[in-house]
Amino acid sequence: MGDLYNKYIQRMQKIADVLYASAVLQWDQETYMPPKGASIRARQLATLAGIAHELATDKELGDILNELHASDKLNEKQKKNIAHSLRDYNIRKKYPNSFVQELTLTLSEAFVAWSEAKEKNDYNLYAPKLKKLIALKQKETQLLGYEKHPYDALLDQYEPGCTTHELDVLFNDVKTQLVPFIKSILTKPAPKDDFMYLHYDAQKQWDFGIELLKQMHYDFGAGRQDKSSHPFTIHFCPNDVRVTTRIDEHNLHEMIWSTIHEGGHALYEQGIPQEEYGLPSGEAISLGVHESQSRIWENNVGRSINYWKGNFALLQKYFPKQLKDVNVDMFYKAMNKIQASLIRTNADELTYHLHILIRYEIEKKIIESELNIDELPEYWNNLYLKYLDIKVPDDKQGILQDIHWSHGSFGYFPTYSIGSFYAAQFFDAAEKQISDLHTQIENGNMLPLLQWLRTHIHQHGKTLTAHEICKYISGQYLNFSYFMNYVKNKYSDIYNL
Amino acid sequence: MGDLYNKYIQRMQKIADVLYASAVLQWDQETYMPPKGASIRARQLATLAGIAHELATDKELGDILNELHASDKLNEKQKKNIAHSLRDYNIRKKYPNSFVQELTLTLSEAFVAWSEAKEKNDYNLYAPKLKKLIALKQKETQLLGYEKHPYDALLDQYEPGCTTHELDVLFNDVKTQLVPFIKSILTKPAPKDDFMYLHYDAQKQWDFGIELLKQMHYDFGAGRQDKSSHPFTIHFCPNDVRVTTRIDEHNLHEMIWSTIHEGGHALYEQGIPQEEYGLPSGEAISLGVHESQSRIWENNVGRSINYWKGNFALLQKYFPKQLKDVNVDMFYKAMNKIQASLIRTNADELTYHLHILIRYEIEKKIIESELNIDELPEYWNNLYLKYLDIKVPDDKQGILQDIHWSHGSFGYFPTYSIGSFYAAQFFDAAEKQISDLHTQIENGNMLPLLQWLRTHIHQHGKTLTAHEICKYISGQYLNFSYFMNYVKNKYSDIYNL
Repeated sequence: MGDLYNKYIQRMQKIADVLYASAVLQWDQETYMPPKGASIRARQLATLAGIAHELATDKELGDILNELHASDKLNEKQKKNIAHSLRDYNIRKKYPNSFVQELTLTLSEAFVAWSEAKEKNDYNLYAPKLKKLIALKQKETQLLGYEKHPYDALLDQYEPGCTTHELDVLFNDVKTQLVPFIKSILTKPAPKDDFMYLHYDAQKQWDFGIELLKQMHYDFGAGRQDKSSHPFTIHFCPNDVRVTTRIDEHNLHEMIWSTIHEGGHALYEQGIPQEEYGLPSGEAISLGVHESQSRIWENNVGRSINYWKGNFALLQKYFPKQLKDVNVDMFYKAMNKIQASLIRTNADELTYHLHILIRYEIEKKIIESELNIDELPEYWNNLYLKYLDIKVPDDKQGILQDIHWSHGSFGYFPTYSIGSFYAAQFFDAAEKQISDLHTQIENGNMLPLLQWLRTHIHQHGKTLTAHEICKYISGQYLNFSYFMNYVKNKYSDIYNL
Repeated sequence: MGDLYNKYIQRMQKIADVLYASAVLQWDQETYMPPKGASIRARQLATLAGIAHELATDKELGDILNELHASDKLNEKQKKNIAHSLRDYNIRKKYPNSFVQELTLTLSEAFVAWSEAKEKNDYNLYAPKLKKLIALKQKETQLLGYEKHPYDALLDQYEPGCTTHELDVLFNDVKTQLVPFIKSILTKPAPKDDFMYLHYDAQKQWDFGIELLKQMHYDFGAGRQDKSSHPFTIHFCPNDVRVTTRIDEHNLHEMIWSTIHEGGHALYEQGIPQEEYGLPSGEAISLGVHESQSRIWENNVGRSINYWKGNFALLQKYFPKQLKDVNVDMFYKAMNKIQASLIRTNADELTYHLHILIRYEIEKKIIESELNIDELPEYWNNLYLKYLDIKVPDDKQGILQDIHWSHGSFGYFPTYSIGSFYAAQFFDAAEKQISDLHTQIENGNMLPLLQWLRTHIHQHGKTLTAHEICKYISGQYLNFSYFMNYVKNKYSDIYNL
């Protein structure tokens, strides 16, 4: 059985090699590739994806997995790896070649149509392709199968085990608790934040960001930071995990919190055991748990008063002129200013979840065929009025703002909110379990928190599910009240509620 | 037959996709990869190499090639592509799996042993592995087969069609003509060149190098320059051809001529038709012809008086203090100073070929089993005394200086000299065919030369052989006298011979 398990490992690692080679090409595409290289790069990526798919659907791999699955000679970790891999294998096998080809073609068309529609601010250029894509995603739910709701089938790809029912409960809490809380905040005077938009030299911002990453114990021997138009984290193995950032010389928010956010993602990947390379035990649990790691660092740590009591003096050293009349309390309030806005990616820590709520409601109805796709912009705009009390001036800043649907990613958006909710629940446990956590953070000592995350989350790979990790850490399943308590404490203080 | 030819194209392009994906990983490895990423990167590269090899030795590909080869419905270019691909296919098929595995293992051991031996300056650490490797390379000549000399089989991998006999003639010319010419130069007083070794700021050097590349019409929309410890050119398609450079703040030679050299390689790759991607018609002819392109730009252009009459004022603008007492004539003489030296890569335009001559003589004897490998250092040192009149102080600066043999690259070194000799012969033709070539160069107008190279060499891919291109351009096969005339004219002037 040992030999067979080794065969399994070899096959999985070969697939990983091809997928991570693709990832290097993608990283290069977003950072350094010269513009004319794009068209051939696209075909090189498609070829690697095809090879990885062939390897991952190979009949012999299926035989190996089934034989190992039936064996009683595996240890616990091995059993879990085989169960994960067999599940993935069977899912891949549910897609007929004809479907994959049609989907690939439609995705490519939809992406082109979306790009053009966004540029020309004309949703009608996108609608026909979006309809076609949605029909295929609906078909995909049938191919995959589901117990209760077709949306479950899509959700499961990003957040295994998560259901529409679970999300309905969570987003109902958002509607009944967070929405009125935000409304009460918005009746109060907004903190002063004009100093965030002075001129901040790009190189100095970069250098400050590097200091923050080092303080988080991001390992620059096993990673690096570069610039890209949209910040991201990508890994080729736990010893090569890279982040990117974006710098706006007239908006200090941009670099600081995107750097901490991506740093959080990267610490997760750097904390996964390298010896599990290619296996489920060497992979992150889910998108939601991944997002919990970025959000803990970005928000629970990086937008806390203690973090800035420790770091504000350093920031002032970098920007003495811009911040000469600003103290740490003013800075803390400015970074936590709440305001309704049009664009999800620019939203604050609270209204962000209303953007997700809107997308979730729309996605569910789309998959249920309960929305006329031609009327999507109107529906979108009405929801922005309803939840954010904001009028959407055009589709570019409305229905066309996100790339996700043109990529076929339905069921992805909710993981952003789930991540923040997990973050609050995990951070609550960390506060209870780590002595003087806030003092440590104020002293710039991030090691206790990092080690706690390593021990409780990172090192496990996929050997625990998201539900299991959550229960293991906090004693219960995901519960919105942790997030609500966190924001109530924090913002009642900031806004004198 | 059109369908079958298209199948051939698809298979070749798929192989190219995998190989060029590997190239992206290699580029990254040499430029930006964090140090801890190395071990997994090595296995990712090995996996891609294995996949490419599987695709390139697939039986169905062989059937397609044989059927197309027998067809009379192909046009001339198609016939040449099929002939090339079939030849490559048949060569690959000559390697038994057991041989490939043993060679791969031995190469890996030899590289480790060489690295350690070089670091510790102890040839004996390397000798056993080198012996094993040489035995395998000798076996390889038997597997590949050859008409006259076993070395031909190895040479043919880098310089198709080139023979040991041809090299014997060339290097005999080197011995009888170039060696005495260099000796006569070295009796004359050396030009002053101390100003080349003042402090030259790295960023300013970088900026100047970029200006030189732009002047050569290196397309930055289809490429980029980065830094690496050894300068190189690499391509992923004609629209993504990258160069690297190395900057020494106390040696102006390093950046300038390595930049022009790599720029010359890159212009070749950027000039190959993108629509021939993956096919022999979309590949460079040989290493020797590739080197001719780098050497034409580096030496025939980049170390000429006219080039610097055009560019020296700009260089002075970058470094007014360092070059205030230097005029273009002094600069020209300094860059062309001839002196015997220990290290090949630092050698001047003339003594360089004595370094290659020495390696060629040794490689031939090694493959003929006429050398005792344990006595290689002594043999090496004697040749340096004989041809360069220089005493080798230790093996690190002697037999261990080059990486090539530890990579199994026997038959590679001669292509460096062949490249320079082709360069002289091609440049002679360009001078005759382009009106006022030297004036154009002096005026900074490199387009006439580039267009001539595009037309006569770049655009053809492998549809002409090196011998054919040479005859087509100059009316005759490779002839050392072009190089000798070039250097005689140039250096007689510089050294008042």
